[in-house]
Amino acid sequence: MHLSQAFETYLPLIEAEIRAVLEPAATPARGHYDIMQYHMGWRDAQLRPVQARGGKRIRPMLCVLAAAATGADPRCALPAAAGLELLHNFSLLHDDIEDGSPTRRHRPTAWVLFGMPIACNAGDGMFSLAHLAFFRLAEQGTPADRLLAALRRFDETCLALTEGQFLDMSFEARLDVTVADYFTMIAGKTGALLAAAPELGALIAGAMPDAVAAYHEYGAQLGRAFQLQDDILGIWGDETVTGKSAAGDILSKKKTLPVLHALNHPAVGPRLAALYAGPAFTSADAPAVLALLEEAAARRVAEEHVRRATAAAHAALARARPSAEPVAHALLAELLDSLVGRQS
Amino acid sequence: MHLSQAFETYLPLIEAEIRAVLEPAATPARGHYDIMQYHMGWRDAQLRPVQARGGKRIRPMLCVLAAAATGADPRCALPAAAGLELLHNFSLLHDDIEDGSPTRRHRPTAWVLFGMPIACNAGDGMFSLAHLAFFRLAEQGTPADRLLAALRRFDETCLALTEGQFLDMSFEARLDVTVADYFTMIAGKTGALLAAAPELGALIAGAMPDAVAAYHEYGAQLGRAFQLQDDILGIWGDETVTGKSAAGDILSKKKTLPVLHALNHPAVGPRLAALYAGPAFTSADAPAVLALLEEAAARRVAEEHVRRATAAAHAALARARPSAEPVAHALLAELLDSLVGRQS
Repeated sequence: MHLSQAFETYLPLIEAEIRAVLEPAATPARGHYDIMQYHMGWRDAQLRPVQARGGKRIRPMLCVLAAAATGADPRCALPAAAGLELLHNFSLLHDDIEDGSPTRRHRPTAWVLFGMPIACNAGDGMFSLAHLAFFRLAEQGTPADRLLAALRRFDETCLALTEGQFLDMSFEARLDVTVADYFTMIAGKTGALLAAAPELGALIAGAMPDAVAAYHEYGAQLGRAFQLQDDILGIWGDETVTGKSAAGDILSKKKTLPVLHALNHPAVGPRLAALYAGPAFTSADAPAVLALLEEAAARRVAEEHVRRATAAAHAALARARPSAEPVAHALLAELLDSLVGRQS
Repeated sequence: MHLSQAFETYLPLIEAEIRAVLEPAATPARGHYDIMQYHMGWRDAQLRPVQARGGKRIRPMLCVLAAAATGADPRCALPAAAGLELLHNFSLLHDDIEDGSPTRRHRPTAWVLFGMPIACNAGDGMFSLAHLAFFRLAEQGTPADRLLAALRRFDETCLALTEGQFLDMSFEARLDVTVADYFTMIAGKTGALLAAAPELGALIAGAMPDAVAAYHEYGAQLGRAFQLQDDILGIWGDETVTGKSAAGDILSKKKTLPVLHALNHPAVGPRLAALYAGPAFTSADAPAVLALLEEAAARRVAEEHVRRATAAAHAALARARPSAEPVAHALLAELLDSLVGRQS
């Protein structure tokens, strides 16, 4: 089985599970769920059913594949997979409000269409439903102590997400952010949920504690590599491939790893800091910033971090191997490489 | 033991439990927790420790007293009591943002001081911590299946809160809201959490399912009576006692029960609707509205609803009685009467 076949096999099951959680019984608050379904890409701006493109469902796939790699029927992890995807989407809904983002997946964000109060409350509803998704595990026979352990890790993940978002927002106003600060921030904002996804899949499937910890580490390192690749594409990505404007993260003065590396570089730092402390950038400013990043070898350093995180993820996967089913295991390795190697 | 003594006994334990949950280990996201602690009244606008007045802690008291009434050591319910109070405070934090409220408990709201993005994210953090509070039950020996049942009811309560908030916000733009719609809305916005509080206390203490259901009903009816009393005070409350402006809910055109009763009154409705469809009210408009409410006997009807809900709450409490410890049981009855009889 190749990765594309795995997506073909599992995505319909994942989608059905998410829909089962997000489809309410008859309720006068029907509109509350319609807003959530708009955000998921299932309804248009008039809240009519539609099939828009949703997310890539990376987190639920990691969860289901880790359950399969443990040797269990991967369907046992579907409720957790749905909960993880709903948590991810809840955080995007609130991030869009907090960052004032006007578009998401080529559509207006929920707060732009329905107002901030209604969208914020819809996010809280989705947060609740992400939790309720897990109780479908009890109905299919997951032991109570295992389900409790999964829920506890899930809530710790929720909290880590908000810590990461807090740090990310607080970085905007600071010029003294270190590379270590940055790694702490992305470990919360990106890494926590990508680590929890395979970890919870393995946990629910009954993997031994060592293997559960190894899948956590695999996801955490995958998250780091994934975010760093995002940072690289945000500066040097091919506009025609990414669909985003060239050097977009430079123009918005986003404090991603390459920039922070250069800001903390003894020779380059002061000159770059002077530019970042000045007025908003226009596209005319990009060449000067890019030249300073080049002087600090920022791209090479970022790519080296990607390589190291990817190797650490593969090593963690190898540690989980003794208890693993080989096909699913190979798919987890393939998913890692495809995410790190992506150009958009 | 009287109610005031019960508060004196249990409040310090409840406060200590909430603080234990809201006090992080060393973290670079310390400021994230400081915002939450400001909202709780533990820090001032400069985020220095301070002892401001927090909330009344009604929900944790209901939880602890129901555990005591079940015959257990009430301390067994403290983690759930803390979780319930944190959920209540999370919802206030987000409600303040969604309603654009500038003050809460005589202080600026968190979003006014720290900005909407930071305050919204602090609410999400508090939502996560409200859940994590429950896992302290496992550490003190609550059986896994009981804890799972409590968490499931807690998440259903979270979802009901957001449904109630959705309905409340959607009422603002509508002139066709019925009294039945109103009761559905307050059952979510006010009733769900006040019902869950004694229900979870009894559940965790090991009460039989019939008694757990009776405590739920007691809390739900208490919530209804509490909200209706709030509605009455919002229109006819004594300004010098409530500390709010006279007829405040009239001037803001809030659709509380007395107003909805009158809007749906065959003779009065059309005239009142004409006023509510017009421009914003000034204090000069209050007498005309109050006269129409008088003509529809709106206050008498609201007071009759309070009496009925209070009687239903007492009846539910009586049904829970067979398994109850008499002192705590009497305190729950006393708490109900004090909340319904309050003048501010």
